[in-house]
Amino acid sequence: MIIVLKPNISRKQERAILQEIRRRGYKPHVMRGVARIVIGAIGDELTHQSLETLLTVFPQIVESVTPVQRRYKLVSREAHPQNSTVKIRDHILGGKKFHVMAGPCSVESEKQLLKTAEAVKAAGATILRGGAFKPRTSPYEFQGLGLKGLKLLAKARKETGLSIITELLSESHVDMVSDYTDIIQIGARNSQNFQLLIAAAKTGKPILLKRGLSMKIEEWLLAGEYVLAHENPNLMFCERGIRTFETYTRNPLDLSAIPIIKKESHFPVVIDPSQGAGRADLVRAMCKGAVAMGADALLIEVHPNPAEAWSDGTQQVSLEVFAELMRELRPIILAAGRE
Amino acid sequence: MIIVLKPNISRKQERAILQEIRRRGYKPHVMRGVARIVIGAIGDELTHQSLETLLTVFPQIVESVTPVQRRYKLVSREAHPQNSTVKIRDHILGGKKFHVMAGPCSVESEKQLLKTAEAVKAAGATILRGGAFKPRTSPYEFQGLGLKGLKLLAKARKETGLSIITELLSESHVDMVSDYTDIIQIGARNSQNFQLLIAAAKTGKPILLKRGLSMKIEEWLLAGEYVLAHENPNLMFCERGIRTFETYTRNPLDLSAIPIIKKESHFPVVIDPSQGAGRADLVRAMCKGAVAMGADALLIEVHPNPAEAWSDGTQQVSLEVFAELMRELRPIILAAGRE
Amino acid sequence: MIIVLKPNISRKQERAILQEIRRRGYKPHVMRGVARIVIGAIGDELTHQSLETLLTVFPQIVESVTPVQRRYKLVSREAHPQNSTVKIRDHILGGKKFHVMAGPCSVESEKQLLKTAEAVKAAGATILRGGAFKPRTSPYEFQGLGLKGLKLLAKARKETGLSIITELLSESHVDMVSDYTDIIQIGARNSQNFQLLIAAAKTGKPILLKRGLSMKIEEWLLAGEYVLAHENPNLMFCERGIRTFETYTRNPLDLSAIPIIKKESHFPVVIDPSQGAGRADLVRAMCKGAVAMGADALLIEVHPNPAEAWSDGTQQVSLEVFAELMRELRPIILAAGRE
Amino acid sequence: MIIVLKPNISRKQERAILQEIRRRGYKPHVMRGVARIVIGAIGDELTHQSLETLLTVFPQIVESVTPVQRRYKLVSREAHPQNSTVKIRDHILGGKKFHVMAGPCSVESEKQLLKTAEAVKAAGATILRGGAFKPRTSPYEFQGLGLKGLKLLAKARKETGLSIITELLSESHVDMVSDYTDIIQIGARNSQNFQLLIAAAKTGKPILLKRGLSMKIEEWLLAGEYVLAHENPNLMFCERGIRTFETYTRNPLDLSAIPIIKKESHFPVVIDPSQGAGRADLVRAMCKGAVAMGADALLIEVHPNPAEAWSDGTQQVSLEVFAELMRELRPIILAAGRE
Repeated sequence: MIIVLKPNISRKQERAILQEIRRRGYKPHVMRGVARIVIGAIGDELTHQSLETLLTVFPQIVESVTPVQRRYKLVSREAHPQNSTVKIRDHILGGKKFHVMAGPCSVESEKQLLKTAEAVKAAGATILRGGAFKPRTSPYEFQGLGLKGLKLLAKARKETGLSIITELLSESHVDMVSDYTDIIQIGARNSQNFQLLIAAAKTGKPILLKRGLSMKIEEWLLAGEYVLAHENPNLMFCERGIRTFETYTRNPLDLSAIPIIKKESHFPVVIDPSQGAGRADLVRAMCKGAVAMGADALLIEVHPNPAEAWSDGTQQVSLEVFAELMRELRPIILAAGRE
Repeated sequence: MIIVLKPNISRKQERAILQEIRRRGYKPHVMRGVARIVIGAIGDELTHQSLETLLTVFPQIVESVTPVQRRYKLVSREAHPQNSTVKIRDHILGGKKFHVMAGPCSVESEKQLLKTAEAVKAAGATILRGGAFKPRTSPYEFQGLGLKGLKLLAKARKETGLSIITELLSESHVDMVSDYTDIIQIGARNSQNFQLLIAAAKTGKPILLKRGLSMKIEEWLLAGEYVLAHENPNLMFCERGIRTFETYTRNPLDLSAIPIIKKESHFPVVIDPSQGAGRADLVRAMCKGAVAMGADALLIEVHPNPAEAWSDGTQQVSLEVFAELMRELRPIILAAGRE
Repeated sequence: MIIVLKPNISRKQERAILQEIRRRGYKPHVMRGVARIVIGAIGDELTHQSLETLLTVFPQIVESVTPVQRRYKLVSREAHPQNSTVKIRDHILGGKKFHVMAGPCSVESEKQLLKTAEAVKAAGATILRGGAFKPRTSPYEFQGLGLKGLKLLAKARKETGLSIITELLSESHVDMVSDYTDIIQIGARNSQNFQLLIAAAKTGKPILLKRGLSMKIEEWLLAGEYVLAHENPNLMFCERGIRTFETYTRNPLDLSAIPIIKKESHFPVVIDPSQGAGRADLVRAMCKGAVAMGADALLIEVHPNPAEAWSDGTQQVSLEVFAELMRELRPIILAAGRE
Repeated sequence: MIIVLKPNISRKQERAILQEIRRRGYKPHVMRGVARIVIGAIGDELTHQSLETLLTVFPQIVESVTPVQRRYKLVSREAHPQNSTVKIRDHILGGKKFHVMAGPCSVESEKQLLKTAEAVKAAGATILRGGAFKPRTSPYEFQGLGLKGLKLLAKARKETGLSIITELLSESHVDMVSDYTDIIQIGARNSQNFQLLIAAAKTGKPILLKRGLSMKIEEWLLAGEYVLAHENPNLMFCERGIRTFETYTRNPLDLSAIPIIKKESHFPVVIDPSQGAGRADLVRAMCKGAVAMGADALLIEVHPNPAEAWSDGTQQVSLEVFAELMRELRPIILAAGRE
C-alpha cells in the first residue's frame, strides 16, 4: 500500500499514522518528498486488513491510499504466463483454430433450431448457441422455452454434432442446464451475481462469462476469479458491448478488451458482436475487427427469419448473411495467423 | 409504433411494408411528409408482436421504428396518480414523515451492531440497516456473517424497536432472509437478476430496489414492474450512484432520479449517499440535497469505528458524525415540508 | 512519483531503472514489498520531466507510475484555505448572500429581454443572463444576435441595475464581449479551448467556467488553473450536467460537484439546472438540491414565452414559474445558512 | 415531427394542440391509437420553427416530440451515395489505397522530426504528423514550438516528400498554420469549437475532424456539416477514443464508428489508436482491427525515443515498433481489399 500524506503534516501526526500502519501488520517505510510525505506500507495486501480506511480515520492527514498488488491472482497472466485453452467436447478453444458459435437468440421451435443448426454447421460454425431461459428487461416479454428449449438443443447437438452453449440465469436451474449444455453462459446482467457464478463453477462445465454493461476490466477479471477460486479452470471471457453515452448503437463493442484481456489474463476471449451492435448490418464489420485483433472465437446470433424472431430480431442475421460473413472472414482469419 | 421510411421509396416498397404491418395485426396510417413517409401503426404494443424487426427485414426501406406506449404499466404514475406508501411495521414510508435507515455496511458482531442500533435510534433513525450476505467484487473479501448476521439483526430489532433492512443476494436464501427482515434489499449488482426479483416479490415483504450502476430509468422501472407483476405492491426505488467517466467519487449520485421517479412512478424514493459518494466526507452534502429534492428516506452507512470496518470502511460515517448530520438535516426536512 | 515494478525483477533490471530515475533528476527510494518492488522517486513533479514514460521504455519491468503531487496549484484549497469571493459590480458572489442569475437562453429582442429582466429582478435575481453568441450543434440553427444582443443586454442593465453575464465563444470577440458584459461565461463546449480561456482571463473580468460534458474534476480545475495562471483571480465554477448513459434527461446534473469543488478549490460554485435537466419541469427540484448542498448561485434560463424561444425552448421556465420557484427556494436558502 | 399525446386527452386539449401546430406552419395528421393519440406534423423541419417546445407549452397534454428528418444534410450519404475522396497533394485518401499518417506527438527539434520522417517514410507512411501547437490539460505542460514547429514540418516535407498534418487550435493561427500544412487537424477538445471549424473550413484545406471525447455520432456529423456548410468538401472523420467508465485505457477506441460513419456519411474515416489506447503496447492490435473494419487511414504517434518525448510519451511507439507494425498490417490490408 502507498499512503500519501497531505502537505504540512506535523511530526506528531506522522507518528500517529505510522503507529496505526504497524498495528495493522504492515511495515511502514517513509519517504520525504518535495511537497509531501509518502509512506510505503509493506505487507501482503491480500491477507492483511486494508489500509484504505486510513482516509476515514485520519481525514486531516491522509490524502490517498493506493494498493500495489493486483486483486486477482488465478486469472492473472502473472500466475500462468502461457495461454490457457478450454476443451469443449472434441474442440480446443483458445488454440490455433478459430471458432464460431452461432444460433438463434432464443430457441423457438424444433424446426427453427434444426434449420439454423444445419445452416451454421454448413457455413463452418462448431458450436450452436440458443437461449432456453431468457433474461428480459420487461416481465411482459418472452422468457424462453425453458426445459423444452434445452431438450431441443440436445436434439440439435445429436443431429449435427455441434456443441451447445446456453445461458444459465437462476441458481435453481443449475442442475437442469448443466445436464444439457456443453458451455454455460453467464449473461451480462448476471456478471456480478456471484452466487450464480459459484453455482455454475461447481458444475465443472466450461463457463463463458460475459462482461457486464458497465464492468471495469478489473471487476470482470475478479468475477472470473470467482470461477477459478471454486476450482473450475474452464473459463472464457466474452465482450458484448459496454454502456456509454452513445445512442447510435445500443452498446458499443469494446474491442480493446481483446488485447487487454490477453495481456492481463491467460484465458480465451470471445466476441459477441450481435448484442454489441444491436443491428445486423454492423455485425459484419465488428466480426472482422474482432478476428484481426486476436479474438479466439465469435458468438453470433443467427435466425432463419429474423423478422419473426421472438426476441431481439433486429440484431440477428439471416442464414444467408451468416454464410456470406463466414466466407468474408476467412482471409482475415488467415491474415491473423489462425485457422 | 411509428415507422419512418427512408427517402425516395417506391410505391411497391411502400406496399410491401404496409402489407407486413397489417399481417402483424396493426392498422397502418400513412403520412406523406416533406422528405419522408411516416407510418403510424395502430394496435396494442404490449400484446402484438413488435414491429422493430421491420428494420432488419426491410433495411433498404425502413429508417427507424419507435414505440409509442410506455413499456411499464403497474409502476407507472399513469396507472396510479396518487403516491403509494409502504407500510413497515408501525411506520409509513412515502408519506409526510421523512425516514432514515442507518447502520453498518456489514453486521460484524453483536457489540458492533447493538451499539450502532442504539446510537442511530437515539439520533432519530427508524430503520436499522446491516448486511448479513455481502456481494463482494473479489472472492477474497469478507462475504458476510450469513445466518448469524440475520439473528443479530433480529436481536437488535427486539432490543431497540427499530425495523430491519438487509440485502438478499441468492434465490436459495429467500426463506431465511424473509424470516428475519422487515425490508428486503435488492442490491445494484442484482437489479436485473430477474429470478431473484421474482423470488423476493413472492414473499410479500417490502422490497427496496437499488438502481443498477448503469441502469436507465426505464430499465429500473421495468425491474420494479417485475415486482408488481408478481403481486407485491410494496416497492421502494433506491438511487445509490451511477457509473460515469468521473473518478473522483466512485459513482456519482444521480439526484435527478428523485424528481424523475416521482414523475414517472407512484412509489417512494430512497437515497443511499454512502455507496454513491464512496467517501464519508461527501455524504453530508448529498443527504441535504436528497432531502431538499423530495426523497422519502435516506439509507446511510454508520459504523462505531469506520477504520475497523470489515467492508467499505471509507464510506461509513461514525456515530458522532451521524448524530451531527441528523441535527443538520432537521431544518432542511422542515423546509422541504416533511416531518 | 511512485513506480511499481513487475514481480520477479532481476537486480540488473532494478539497477537500470534506478539509473534512469536519477538521470531525470529524481532521487530514488526503494521499498521491497511482499510481491513487488516499489520505488519512490523524490523530486518536484511540476518542474522535472515526468517519469510516466518509464512505462514505455521499460515495459517488461515497470507496472505503473503514479504522480504524488496535485497538478493544479493556484485553484487549489491547499494554496488558499479560505473561500475566495468574486466581486460583480456591487455584489459579492461566494459570500453569505445567495445569488440567482436568470434570463433567456438567447437574447431575441428588446421587448423579450427587458420584460424578462424586469420580471427576474422583481423575483429576486441580481444578475441577468442572455446569449448574444450561441454555440449551436447544427450550422442551421439560430447563432445569436451578436453585437446587437450585447447592446440590448447593456440597455437592460441600465434600465434594471442588474449585472450581466453572457457567453464568449470566439477569440475574435473578446474585446467586444468584455466591453459589454460584467461576467464572461465560457461554455461547456469551450471548457478546454485553452486559447479562449487565456484570452478571456486577460480581460480581468470575472469568468464563469462551465464544466465540459465529460470533464473530470481534475481537468476542470486545471482549466480554471489556466485562468489563474494568466493572473485573473475572479473565477467561478459552473456545473451544468455531465454526459452519461442515461437518456431520460439530456445530461444529468452532477450535484456532487458542489461539495467536491468546495473541498478541492476555494472558488464559488454556480449551478445551471436548465442545461442539465433539459426540461423545465425538473429545474425546480434541481434548484432546491443545489441550494441545500451549498452552491453559491444558480444560473436559470427564463423566457417570457418558452414556446416561442429561438433556442432550447424546452428547458426555459416562464416568468410565472420562475417567480414561484424563487418563493419556494427561500426557506431552503435560509435552512442552508444563506441569505 | 411526431407528437405523442398523453393518455385521456380531451377534445378541447386536442384542438389546442392542433391549432398551435398549424400556426407554426405544419400540417397536422391525427392518428388515434389504442392508448394514445399520435400527431404527425408535416412540414420541412429544417426551415420551420421546431415543435419541441410544445412539451413546455402544453406539459399536461404532450408526452413527446420527435423529429423525423436528419439534422445533417451535406455530410449525409443520402445526399451523396458514392464515397467521397480527399486529395492531399499527390495522394487520394478514401480510395483503394490505404494511408498511414505517422510522426511525433509534438515537434521537438529538427533532428527528432527528420529522423522520424525518414523512418516512417521508409516503413510506408505517406503523411507526416507532428504537433506545433499543443492543447495541454495543464498550463504548466509544454505547449508546442509554434511557428518554429511549422517551419520544421515544412522542411521535413521538402526533404522527404511526405505530406504534412498538424493541429490548429486557435482562430488567430489560421493563416499561419494553413500556410504550412497540407491537412488541418481539429482536435477532440475543439470538435465543437464552431468558430474554429468555420475559420478552418474557409481555408479550403483538407480538414481532419477528430471526434470529441463524448461526442455522439450525430453531433460529430453536425460538426462536419459546419465544414461543408462553409464550402469546404475536403473532410475526414477521425475517431480517437471516447470517454467511458473504463479506466484501464485512457479512452477506449470506438471502432464501431468506422462502419457507422461509412453508413451515415460519404467521407473517409481515419483511426488514431495512439490517443485512444494511451499505451503503445495496445496500439498494434487497434491498428489491425481498424484496417479489417474498413478504415481509410491510420494516424499513429511515432517517436525516435518515446521515453524522452516532451508530451504523451507513453502512447508513442518507437521507430522499430512502427516498422514492425507496418509489416504486420500488410496482410490485413490486403485481406480487407486495400492496397
